[in-house]
Amino acid sequence: MSAVCALRWQGGALELLDQRLLPAQQLWLRCASAAEVADAIRDMVVRGAPAIGIAAAYGAVLAARAAYAGHGTGWRDVIVADLDLIAAARPTAVNLAWAVQRMAGCLAELAGDPEPALLAAARAIHDQDIAANHAMAAYGAALIEPGSRVLTHCNTGALATGGHGTALGVIRTAHAQGRIREVFVDETRPWLQGARLTAWELQQDGIPARLVVDGAAAWLFARLRPAWLIVGADRIAANGDTANKIGTYTAALAARAHGARVMVVAPLSTFDPATPDGSAIEVEERPAQELTCLAGQAIAPAGFAAWNPVFDVTPADLIDAIVCEHGVIERPDAARIADFLAALGP
Amino acid sequence: MSAVCALRWQGGALELLDQRLLPAQQLWLRCASAAEVADAIRDMVVRGAPAIGIAAAYGAVLAARAAYAGHGTGWRDVIVADLDLIAAARPTAVNLAWAVQRMAGCLAELAGDPEPALLAAARAIHDQDIAANHAMAAYGAALIEPGSRVLTHCNTGALATGGHGTALGVIRTAHAQGRIREVFVDETRPWLQGARLTAWELQQDGIPARLVVDGAAAWLFARLRPAWLIVGADRIAANGDTANKIGTYTAALAARAHGARVMVVAPLSTFDPATPDGSAIEVEERPAQELTCLAGQAIAPAGFAAWNPVFDVTPADLIDAIVCEHGVIERPDAARIADFLAALGP
Repeated sequence: MSAVCALRWQGGALELLDQRLLPAQQLWLRCASAAEVADAIRDMVVRGAPAIGIAAAYGAVLAARAAYAGHGTGWRDVIVADLDLIAAARPTAVNLAWAVQRMAGCLAELAGDPEPALLAAARAIHDQDIAANHAMAAYGAALIEPGSRVLTHCNTGALATGGHGTALGVIRTAHAQGRIREVFVDETRPWLQGARLTAWELQQDGIPARLVVDGAAAWLFARLRPAWLIVGADRIAANGDTANKIGTYTAALAARAHGARVMVVAPLSTFDPATPDGSAIEVEERPAQELTCLAGQAIAPAGFAAWNPVFDVTPADLIDAIVCEHGVIERPDAARIADFLAALGP
Repeated sequence: MSAVCALRWQGGALELLDQRLLPAQQLWLRCASAAEVADAIRDMVVRGAPAIGIAAAYGAVLAARAAYAGHGTGWRDVIVADLDLIAAARPTAVNLAWAVQRMAGCLAELAGDPEPALLAAARAIHDQDIAANHAMAAYGAALIEPGSRVLTHCNTGALATGGHGTALGVIRTAHAQGRIREVFVDETRPWLQGARLTAWELQQDGIPARLVVDGAAAWLFARLRPAWLIVGADRIAANGDTANKIGTYTAALAARAHGARVMVVAPLSTFDPATPDGSAIEVEERPAQELTCLAGQAIAPAGFAAWNPVFDVTPADLIDAIVCEHGVIERPDAARIADFLAALGP
């Protein structure tokens, strides 16, 4: 179990580790209302799709408490506005809408004070996410030869999930099993999630690791021979093409050029059978300022333009294994993914 | 001609644009003695092997002036210590030793005040570097189809040379000829020479350009289809394997994966026939702090380790053309490079 967590229910409120301040400061932000949870999600106090979904579920508990205290039996009419507020905090994160809908689905059955039942439902979402992470971790770790070095990109750890992590969960479990002797961490420009968050998680857990600049990937695979590139995913198309943090595709090319393998680790909810392939995935582009400024300091000439896509799409033929909580799809393509999903049933 | 320059002889002293402060501040630092020139080279006020060589040549002029003023006809005995001081400022830059040796070679012939003749010699070194850059630029630009996009890495411009630049000189000339419609600039972590220096040079010259994170290379070639990756070199082995700023090899793999070409632009002095191939090139590794801190701010956990090689080696088979002031070597290998050098004569 990781020593790190992104969020906790404590003293009747949701506490979030403020990820904007890591690693310089470890500050827990207390949210005692639905509005405070929505603000925290919007302002990226908490990030990572699974972690956002769990925060939203606890936010629904706070919404119900306020509605019941203020309106008694009329609480069901009042809570809707707060749930909408939470769901709208970051509309692109699919787990957020899913968690709010699941919490809303519990409301009809409740009598009396809704808080205990909703808190149990939020805890179930949280626990299920952790369980899924551990299932993925076991499947993924089994693919790694003992004593390996690996490279990871961005942050996919306890800070991005309910705990343990997706790609970083595989790395945690594989390290505990003696399969990993050293982790290389891409700093992951422009947001530095690797340098700020993944490095911090690995340091907390005492896992041997070294930071590298994203551009060092090819030279790293050439010289220090990591056996695997292990990454998360934001969306997996029907043919296995995978959208993930910008830099993933470049790292995957470097891995392939040196015979290293590429593992994508993501829960089943990341699969998108409605998107046939990577060309149909819309990739968000963000402002130039994220490249030209860092921590309030200019690092490029004022007004200089930038091309700043948040994600890239790694073609399926560079991916050796996709790992989810139900198992492993090796050498993924449209047929293998369809067969895997069909075998899970409706 | 570029609007940018790294150094100038003005009012009887060497003035250097302080590259540590760019792009936030444009401050000229005046060096009136050999010791001040040596300090400026050591502290990286000026960087880029050709620019360092030229600064050293002007430093020798200042050394001669002081020696002649203080010791009259005995100046030749006194100047040696100052020349040694300059040559030792950054021992790995091959152009520095070369320029000091060339200036020292002039001393024997001089009578009376040595300053005018040595200033002429320094100006000749400066002018020859600019001329070599323009020759490379013409050879390189001719390889680029009109209306192309290109990607460059690190800084190889007027700030790194006597003026115009090597890889960036090709880009300047090709833009002036209508061959380049847009330049993508790798920010070039960890030192950000692309974001700080190349972006600034391109902005000064009004050449359309956008900054990208180094990790975006594969997605950039996939989506916006730059036709060329154009880079400088620190050392070119006998077989064409090329040491250059970390990130070059990764970008070259991305280019090749999408059918884009790779051009290396460097003066003849960069060729190292005594090194058979890239495996024989020693790559300097620098402290972790260059990755974990930026502008005095911590961007990773305190004490976190890093792997920080300054250079990588791009295998010759990823390079489509090496351009120097004497011409172009297409699809470089040991035989083609040996033939090219043999044709230049002894």
